[in-house]
Amino acid sequence: MSKPTITAFDWVPPFAEGQVRDLRVRWALEEVGQPYDVLYLTQGRQKHPEHRQRQPFGQVPTYEDGDLVLFESGAIVLHIAEKHGKLLPADPGARARTIEWMFAALNSVEPPIMDHAIATLFEAGEPWSKPRLPAVEQRIHERFGELSRRLGDRQWLDGDEFTAGDLLMVAVLRILADDGFLDRYDNLAAYVARGTARPAFQRALADQMAGFTGSPPPEIQAWLDKQGEAA
Amino acid sequence: MSKPTITAFDWVPPFAEGQVRDLRVRWALEEVGQPYDVLYLTQGRQKHPEHRQRQPFGQVPTYEDGDLVLFESGAIVLHIAEKHGKLLPADPGARARTIEWMFAALNSVEPPIMDHAIATLFEAGEPWSKPRLPAVEQRIHERFGELSRRLGDRQWLDGDEFTAGDLLMVAVLRILADDGFLDRYDNLAAYVARGTARPAFQRALADQMAGFTGSPPPEIQAWLDKQGEAA
Repeated sequence: MSKPTITAFDWVPPFAEGQVRDLRVRWALEEVGQPYDVLYLTQGRQKHPEHRQRQPFGQVPTYEDGDLVLFESGAIVLHIAEKHGKLLPADPGARARTIEWMFAALNSVEPPIMDHAIATLFEAGEPWSKPRLPAVEQRIHERFGELSRRLGDRQWLDGDEFTAGDLLMVAVLRILADDGFLDRYDNLAAYVARGTARPAFQRALADQMAGFTGSPPPEIQAWLDKQGEAA
Repeated sequence: MSKPTITAFDWVPPFAEGQVRDLRVRWALEEVGQPYDVLYLTQGRQKHPEHRQRQPFGQVPTYEDGDLVLFESGAIVLHIAEKHGKLLPADPGARARTIEWMFAALNSVEPPIMDHAIATLFEAGEPWSKPRLPAVEQRIHERFGELSRRLGDRQWLDGDEFTAGDLLMVAVLRILADDGFLDRYDNLAAYVARGTARPAFQRALADQMAGFTGSPPPEIQAWLDKQGEAA
């Protein structure tokens, strides 16, 4: 079996370390036992035409395996799961529900979390961000409460088997784990802890962190300084 | 082959008519030629425990076929495509890229569009909404510009074949078609026009519109009145 190559950053701001989306792809590759290579991009190179051929939105990760070039971490995780026959149950109903939870993680749960990142990080210094934060937080808690009720006392979202749906949902939920959002949902907090305790996740996280060997370009350093002043 | 049942609303505010996400599922069912039944929910019933058993977030659409109960329109569209062997190319690479565009539509392109809906509809009366609108619009134009450059002069995202990726992307892009966002991207506007001209889309849209035979509950009427005053 050929060895795929993914793309990742050699430097991100501290708040993004351990959160860049190549983590999701690394985690899936670790779960299925597939070695891979990493092409590291310096900050800024993701917007160059060469990389946009792989990723039209100028982001990481991408996944290349022979002639196949893929972007969108959700699609890459599903491709890896299908290719290896792991993380995706064989039973047709359970398989469809796994894909359902993959889309739920990325289209129903992640958007309010990304909105929180916009309000607290990317637009932290804007005058509208602080006033609207309670509304953003309310939307997150609405989703977390609903998800907590559905999870109940299950081990994983669809029962006893860890799937690609859990992988993406845990990856999304843990974005806010350090901000206390999970504190009022014991079962969700335990679910995220179970997911991130998996050896495959730990290897993926360690490898992403180990890849941050670069430094910010001058214009990003200036932006970071500005964020620091505004905070 | 059994006949699936989807859920939809019997009433939505005027701005949501023709945009509720059961449209995406109806469109896919029309493309593959699969008849279906619709269970219409009055407004408010989507939050009742009975419906939350189908859809933990209290939304439409859902899809039921025998023992299988699915939510998330992206997952339902993919399920329909796989089940019928349509909208999804047989070639493994083209199949993976179709799924890539499905996730791209829902995770990379739709979130800033939904943010626009929050700023201009759901939080239209909030003091922070108008000041932040330029930043929201800029994020939308960034994505639309990138998508326009990738589409180029192709007929569909991956070439000459209309896929489930195009179905979701057109469904997402057309949310803002009436707001002028597509005006500066001739190829995207033509792409959306090609997609929505498809007979299957036209039938799906007509059927969603024909289903709005109900009326708003009193508390929603009060909310609408309040939005009207604020606008």
